[in-house]
Amino acid sequence: MKKYFSCCCPSLIPSRETARFYLLFVLIALYMLAGAAIFSSLERPAELQAHLLWERRLQDFRHEHNISYEDLKSLLHHYEEARTAGIRTEQGRALWDIPGAFYFVGTVVSTIGFGVTAPSTLTGKVLLVFYGLLGCSSTILFFNLFLERVITLLSFLIFWCHRRRGGHSGLEDSDGNRNEEWKPSVYQVTLILFVAVLLVACGAASLYSAMEGWSYLESLYFCFVAFSTVGFGDFVSGQREHHEDTRVYQVGNCLLMLLGVCCTYSLFNAISVIIKQGLNWMLRTLAWMYSG
Amino acid sequence: MKKYFSCCCPSLIPSRETARFYLLFVLIALYMLAGAAIFSSLERPAELQAHLLWERRLQDFRHEHNISYEDLKSLLHHYEEARTAGIRTEQGRALWDIPGAFYFVGTVVSTIGFGVTAPSTLTGKVLLVFYGLLGCSSTILFFNLFLERVITLLSFLIFWCHRRRGGHSGLEDSDGNRNEEWKPSVYQVTLILFVAVLLVACGAASLYSAMEGWSYLESLYFCFVAFSTVGFGDFVSGQREHHEDTRVYQVGNCLLMLLGVCCTYSLFNAISVIIKQGLNWMLRTLAWMYSG
Ligand SMILES: [K+]
Ligand SMILES: [K+]
Repeated sequence: MKKYFSCCCPSLIPSRETARFYLLFVLIALYMLAGAAIFSSLERPAELQAHLLWERRLQDFRHEHNISYEDLKSLLHHYEEARTAGIRTEQGRALWDIPGAFYFVGTVVSTIGFGVTAPSTLTGKVLLVFYGLLGCSSTILFFNLFLERVITLLSFLIFWCHRRRGGHSGLEDSDGNRNEEWKPSVYQVTLILFVAVLLVACGAASLYSAMEGWSYLESLYFCFVAFSTVGFGDFVSGQREHHEDTRVYQVGNCLLMLLGVCCTYSLFNAISVIIKQGLNWMLRTLAWMYSG
Repeated sequence: MKKYFSCCCPSLIPSRETARFYLLFVLIALYMLAGAAIFSSLERPAELQAHLLWERRLQDFRHEHNISYEDLKSLLHHYEEARTAGIRTEQGRALWDIPGAFYFVGTVVSTIGFGVTAPSTLTGKVLLVFYGLLGCSSTILFFNLFLERVITLLSFLIFWCHRRRGGHSGLEDSDGNRNEEWKPSVYQVTLILFVAVLLVACGAASLYSAMEGWSYLESLYFCFVAFSTVGFGDFVSGQREHHEDTRVYQVGNCLLMLLGVCCTYSLFNAISVIIKQGLNWMLRTLAWMYSG
């Protein structure tokens, strides 16, 4: 295919790699536009309602306590400042003790970045850049090594299952040689990884819904947001003070996050291979239409 | 080396890949512990100070206006709710109009996830999981294709410079054959990518410090946090209402983000190759010490 593109009119028709890159760019842009339209229509009414509700509550509070708008605004401004230092109305745990800082560092190197904790001092900000540079690179390597190992393990498992099934049915016994060369398809790997992520997420969501006071659906949403390393910070696990077994829960929380992020990274990579195949197919179709 | 590990005592000594994986895990854990200690010592005093300051301000406000603690806490709790819908004391732009939703969707597929905007409705949350699954996978593919293209381009450029320099000095003219096989080292690629990220970050920081009212250092910090896809959300660009050329700035903002994230992803991958080489070197040294 590459030869086809490069032999006829090499200056006008881009190489297959270039075409694939730009096709993906355009598709992602369209996907984002569609997403923007959908999310806007879903969330805009709720935003307007929240604004109205807040305006009314502010008005009520001011009338009830006879406070000027400026004084109240100044208080809320101070509260915003205080929030960046981790102050909440519900008593939370300290952010920058050693376990808190460890959790923060974890959200940096994994690039989750919930943002409940972020360096407030200038020294901390400068240090973060250098710390993150090495930390994020190490974690990318870790994820890639994890992915390699998962693929090796899955190849072995699927091959083993395949041969076992082959052994059971007499039909496939004859082509034993072909079985030896057999490799798992990306669809099988993706499916297994999807089930793995789902299992980890469901297990973690049970824990979170029990410990954090979130609904099961909210916990599942949190799991996806954390595992995909998007990390909005609207829900953050392990921030409440009053857990009976705080230490055990924190360790379990970290391990679940680690497992979830690794599996989801692998799943994303598997899906990206399928998308790449889809792009190749689209380019072939386009080339066929162009030449036909 | 793999043979060395597997030929003598295969059951006790792990394979080189396994050893490398666990070594990296241990090193990252140690790196995180060290980071936790450093960031905790840096940020803990500021946290305690912020708590004291807020307590005093709250106390002053209550005495001045004679409001009960419960009433004030209830107001602040409502304000926290309102904040999740994007309400701030400084007038910001609407979050869920089409440009806002597009920005939101961009932070999802790039996994930056600033969290200024996050779906508040249950439908939005459920949709986000499925939307993100495809979006994040597509973006990972896009980043990988970008990385491939950057490596190809850099190889070509470095080779060209190398040959040009070879042509200038008479000494290297004799081994022209060796020049043809020459490939850029990972150190060269890393250095060039580092300079590229630095240039993009410095350029972007100039823009942000002019448009967002942040200091230059804060803007650089924001650039790193955004480009590395950590995205704490303590600084978020393009949220203020009063830009004269809002549309132009928003488009420029998006393009800078895209370029920055792509370059930083490539840089992280280049550094991760160097770290991998470092791990291999450590394993060789360990094996040599073990055998010696
Ligand atoms: K993130
Ligand atoms: K984030």
